[in-house]
Amino acid sequence: MNRGFETAEFRSRVAKAQTLMAKHGFAAMLLSTEPEVRYFTGYLTRFWESPTRPWFVIVPATGDPIAVIPAIGAPLMARGWIRDIRTWRAPDLVDDGVTLLAETLTEVAKGGNVAVPMGHETHLRMPLADFHRLQRLINPINIVPDAGMMRSLRMVKSTAEIDKIRTACQIAGRAFDRVSEIALPGASLESVFRRFQMLCLDEGADWVPYLAGGAGPAGYDDVISPATPTPLTAGDVLMLDTGLVWDGYFCDYDRNFAIGSVSQAIKDGHRRLIDATTAAMEVAKPGATAADLFHAMDKVLTGGAGGSDAGRYGHGLGMQLTEWPSIIPGDHTVLEEGMVLTLEPGLEIEGGSGLVHEENIVIRAGGPEPLTRFSTPDMVEI
Amino acid sequence: MNRGFETAEFRSRVAKAQTLMAKHGFAAMLLSTEPEVRYFTGYLTRFWESPTRPWFVIVPATGDPIAVIPAIGAPLMARGWIRDIRTWRAPDLVDDGVTLLAETLTEVAKGGNVAVPMGHETHLRMPLADFHRLQRLINPINIVPDAGMMRSLRMVKSTAEIDKIRTACQIAGRAFDRVSEIALPGASLESVFRRFQMLCLDEGADWVPYLAGGAGPAGYDDVISPATPTPLTAGDVLMLDTGLVWDGYFCDYDRNFAIGSVSQAIKDGHRRLIDATTAAMEVAKPGATAADLFHAMDKVLTGGAGGSDAGRYGHGLGMQLTEWPSIIPGDHTVLEEGMVLTLEPGLEIEGGSGLVHEENIVIRAGGPEPLTRFSTPDMVEI
Repeated sequence: MNRGFETAEFRSRVAKAQTLMAKHGFAAMLLSTEPEVRYFTGYLTRFWESPTRPWFVIVPATGDPIAVIPAIGAPLMARGWIRDIRTWRAPDLVDDGVTLLAETLTEVAKGGNVAVPMGHETHLRMPLADFHRLQRLINPINIVPDAGMMRSLRMVKSTAEIDKIRTACQIAGRAFDRVSEIALPGASLESVFRRFQMLCLDEGADWVPYLAGGAGPAGYDDVISPATPTPLTAGDVLMLDTGLVWDGYFCDYDRNFAIGSVSQAIKDGHRRLIDATTAAMEVAKPGATAADLFHAMDKVLTGGAGGSDAGRYGHGLGMQLTEWPSIIPGDHTVLEEGMVLTLEPGLEIEGGSGLVHEENIVIRAGGPEPLTRFSTPDMVEI
Repeated sequence: MNRGFETAEFRSRVAKAQTLMAKHGFAAMLLSTEPEVRYFTGYLTRFWESPTRPWFVIVPATGDPIAVIPAIGAPLMARGWIRDIRTWRAPDLVDDGVTLLAETLTEVAKGGNVAVPMGHETHLRMPLADFHRLQRLINPINIVPDAGMMRSLRMVKSTAEIDKIRTACQIAGRAFDRVSEIALPGASLESVFRRFQMLCLDEGADWVPYLAGGAGPAGYDDVISPATPTPLTAGDVLMLDTGLVWDGYFCDYDRNFAIGSVSQAIKDGHRRLIDATTAAMEVAKPGATAADLFHAMDKVLTGGAGGSDAGRYGHGLGMQLTEWPSIIPGDHTVLEEGMVLTLEPGLEIEGGSGLVHEENIVIRAGGPEPLTRFSTPDMVEI
């Protein structure tokens, strides 16, 4: 599997963006978060873990994107396809790139509107005071919402992107195959989490940004808590949910394991989750909506009661662990070929505890393609 | 080493914040990022990897903080000390917590100003359009900059925080001791990166959010690029820079290794980096400034030429890989007891390639305390 992308792919992304920008009358688009910057430049580094420095990319109405970035990032950016790289010595406590950014925007936008992603699942990754200063410096240029452009661009994945997500899924699949090496009765959940991350790396993950899970005889009461020192006990169901990365793309799926013999309620619950996944697969076609997937699963899970307050039944996936759309009743996003989704049904077993199950798929014209090796109705027993 | 914090620690943080708020006349503080939320609540989860849902904490002028969070987070938040937990069913594409947040702020602020961190190294983790809507909903309450409150609170660490950082440093130290197991000539840098993360986990890291490095006969040309398939060759210097996490706190330090016999220029360069660290240790006392540390190191490294555009010579460290202050000429932050810093001198060897070295310390009244086991002037040879 090749790393990176052909320059043609970035040019195609820019062309699609510029078509949308023309439609909305935007003179430029200003981007500041890791996936936004990477989408157009290919700039892949773990250095974003440092919150110190802001990074910017400007996509003009015509022509190639411009990177306005700290000098420390110039060598890596120059290895990619972007040629117009403008840098400052960061951090600068007086003017951390704001003047340089304002000058560049003024030059590029020529008085027109600058679009910034402002909608659901976005944020602006720069100090708010610097953003306000930027607005004053570029006056009379206006910063306006991007009308969901980045959302619609990123939601549909290219073949190369799907290949990377599939690779991530395959790596996690091999790690899941080896859980019996680490999840013996008596092992603490802490140790299982630590060792599972090692398995993911051993099987080829570049890094493991996300791991969650839980264990208990009636399932787990939430799926976002850190691991505890509690030892696994015969009769527990153990769930591991991993978001590992390969070449900048995530998988996000989980597996449940029976530690010895689990209760009939757990076995039945797991089968119902698989049934829900199957029901979703039957409707996951171009033209259906995210809400349609929700209702297909919810019918199996609750008889159509509408789910719980805690979760969704899945979401988009790609450069981030979770992306648009949301598989909830209120998300009427129409599915398109190339969208990558998780199907993530959950149900309560007793007293607030329950099970979740998660698979990853890509929407295709002829029906969804599994990116994960789908689970059988019966849990793997350890 | 105990995980978590005593409730008394959180009460002390809130009391300090409320003293500052009173001084500035703030009616409440609104926080939205992972470290800000965790600082007052102890809420520790890897779920922040998902950008979908916003999370909020309000610190009122008097009384305990209030969490305004997605329902999926309520069980974990309720395990901590926060009692006033207000939730909504997220994601909600129409109103993703904004009305609930506005109601809570209106109730708490009673017409006074609400402070939000807006300065260097901060950002607002919510959709900008939702922030604008929030401002309209809470009118006439104003949202104002926090006057650097969060910065000054977080910059000085408690004993319990320092213990966690020290634990993270010790874990990385044990992993560095084992690099000879994985960095044999012929091993690709990719494989070294992967296996080093496994060593960090094996030695007790909860997770490994950051790993960077480089290798070459004259050093490396940047320290933020992903690993390549290039095999290590005798004569290379290999640098690994890790930000691993234990109980929510980072270490951030690196080590250089000689793969067989390296050039005299590299050996001399490494010794000079250690000399620079020693020079910084001599001035790293309460009352000195971050800029003083820069100049002490720069005198050794460049004869006082002022460093390079690419880097700093260190920074703060804690809940994030990098925090305030910056060891740069322009940062006049006065060092205080309890500040945790990295000392990170770097120099060029030839043609844009060079070396960096990094240690972690805590400022103490009687002189700095090393949190890492300091490197000797001679590089470890593998």
